[in-house]
Amino acid sequence: MAKATVKPVVGVDLGGTKILAAVVDGENKILSRFKKRTKLEGGPEGLTERICQAVEGALVTAKLTPADVAAIGVGAAGPTDTAAGVVVTMPNLGIENLPLGKRLTDRFSVPARIENDVNCGTIAECRLGAGKGAADVLGVFPGTGIGGGILVGGTLLRGRNQAAAEIGHTVIDPNGPLCACGVHGCLEAYASRLAIVRDIAAAVGRGEASIAGEYIRPDGTNRLRSKALARGVTEGDKVITDVLERAARMLGEAIGSAINLLGCELVILGGGVTEALGSWLVNRVAAAAEKRALKIAFKGVRIVQASLGDDAICLGAALLAREALAENK
Amino acid sequence: MAKATVKPVVGVDLGGTKILAAVVDGENKILSRFKKRTKLEGGPEGLTERICQAVEGALVTAKLTPADVAAIGVGAAGPTDTAAGVVVTMPNLGIENLPLGKRLTDRFSVPARIENDVNCGTIAECRLGAGKGAADVLGVFPGTGIGGGILVGGTLLRGRNQAAAEIGHTVIDPNGPLCACGVHGCLEAYASRLAIVRDIAAAVGRGEASIAGEYIRPDGTNRLRSKALARGVTEGDKVITDVLERAARMLGEAIGSAINLLGCELVILGGGVTEALGSWLVNRVAAAAEKRALKIAFKGVRIVQASLGDDAICLGAALLAREALAENK
Repeated sequence: MAKATVKPVVGVDLGGTKILAAVVDGENKILSRFKKRTKLEGGPEGLTERICQAVEGALVTAKLTPADVAAIGVGAAGPTDTAAGVVVTMPNLGIENLPLGKRLTDRFSVPARIENDVNCGTIAECRLGAGKGAADVLGVFPGTGIGGGILVGGTLLRGRNQAAAEIGHTVIDPNGPLCACGVHGCLEAYASRLAIVRDIAAAVGRGEASIAGEYIRPDGTNRLRSKALARGVTEGDKVITDVLERAARMLGEAIGSAINLLGCELVILGGGVTEALGSWLVNRVAAAAEKRALKIAFKGVRIVQASLGDDAICLGAALLAREALAENK
Repeated sequence: MAKATVKPVVGVDLGGTKILAAVVDGENKILSRFKKRTKLEGGPEGLTERICQAVEGALVTAKLTPADVAAIGVGAAGPTDTAAGVVVTMPNLGIENLPLGKRLTDRFSVPARIENDVNCGTIAECRLGAGKGAADVLGVFPGTGIGGGILVGGTLLRGRNQAAAEIGHTVIDPNGPLCACGVHGCLEAYASRLAIVRDIAAAVGRGEASIAGEYIRPDGTNRLRSKALARGVTEGDKVITDVLERAARMLGEAIGSAINLLGCELVILGGGVTEALGSWLVNRVAAAAEKRALKIAFKGVRIVQASLGDDAICLGAALLAREALAENK
């Protein structure tokens, strides 16, 4: 089919800190991007409005109107009811059961597909990025939290309640640190950026010497982001590397266990923390995963870094929106 | 189709302590059973011979000859290469890459299907037993070890190396007891019968009062089986109940984590330990799993006891052998 006959779609990455919209053409090339910060103010209506503004911004940048695109796909940082087009919850933003699909369709008069963000990232990496050609895949995206995406035979594993692949809430140690979900010792309580920053801040609070002190203010604000973690590794900062070594080991424990359970052929590590730390993190995670996994389960398994960076979720959301169109025809 | 036109199949449960063969008719009724003990002596040849004797015993009991059956299915207590008809390993019996399918076909002149035993048990429970009608299922069978079986959309999840569903080797605590697989703190190191007996024997060794003392001889032999565990619970034996409470909690931790990962709708608890302890175990496992699972993932999930007892693996092996015949047609 000639490129000109396939309408572009808009893919939206709806994260806890930013909204990124991109216009994606029929060959999965990004024609334009538009970014807005996710804000707490305004509740569900305010958030919806900002998402619409991001979509419009991406369209205008690409010199397109809504009539020029075939669909909008959204990857949301939380569980979604894809069949109903609903963002089930984004607790940090006070979002519960937001019918975002309907809102976008009402506004732009095109079909809209709402999906979990890490599902989108995993799909994008498997179709276009580091996982091309793989069919049985686990995607793990450590960021503010830790999201997961699972492909079985090339198809997203959604699970009964469309809440599958929550590797961030698999147990590492029942007596471990308290997790945001309310129980102790989930992976997220060790290896999310929030947990990593918590442990580094505690060490700094105890008076241990670290460059992290430059990012943690006496007024309690904390500007320790993934890039500062990478700087700590590069400069051999003991506090930062010790905390990250443990986080990597625990990621490997959870991933090795998941390999034993799922029998996947490929694990893709993505998200901001992975992007900042690169092979330093991937190698440590892979070593710990290999140790936990049974020899027979680990044979031939590859653990790789995601390659699509910040575009992964937009691209996956766009891909899934396009696939949904094809299924409905 | 009339019953008379469908040939029976033989299903074999190849376990670490017993071999159970059953002739199963076209309506999945068991026509005969024949049991032999699994023996260490004789190596792979001796084991193959005993399996053949069990099959012959079941046939003779049902007044049938090999020509009367359509296929033989085997559920083996270890990883299998189903496509090649090979038992990959049964470490306790010194079995490595045993081409059991070919041996059975050579001997009985019928197609033979080799499958993992817990896969068989899970399939049987989902088609004929406690899981009838469920499509997304996790089967967990605590016994000498802890086996698992996973159905996604009604189909067995085999994984890249046909080694998926090894929930016994998912992490509970990286600093926990040493597991037979070589690393620390797998579920199996807490909740298999071997681990349970190890912990009870240690308490008895420390001089704690327990009926377990009746089963553990001064010469080191240990006759503590599942029925003795059930007796301990009934009689309120503190040593036994404490160890089992912990095992149940850890089973729940691993199952809750697996629900978060897989999004299954049903968990089936089977195996000898579950059969002996019944709802006492199932209720405790379910409570711990609910605590670990995310609310959204656990919604509507049922955790139930297997209902086919000792026949589950034979029936599942028979079902899968019949399905393989149908696929080849």
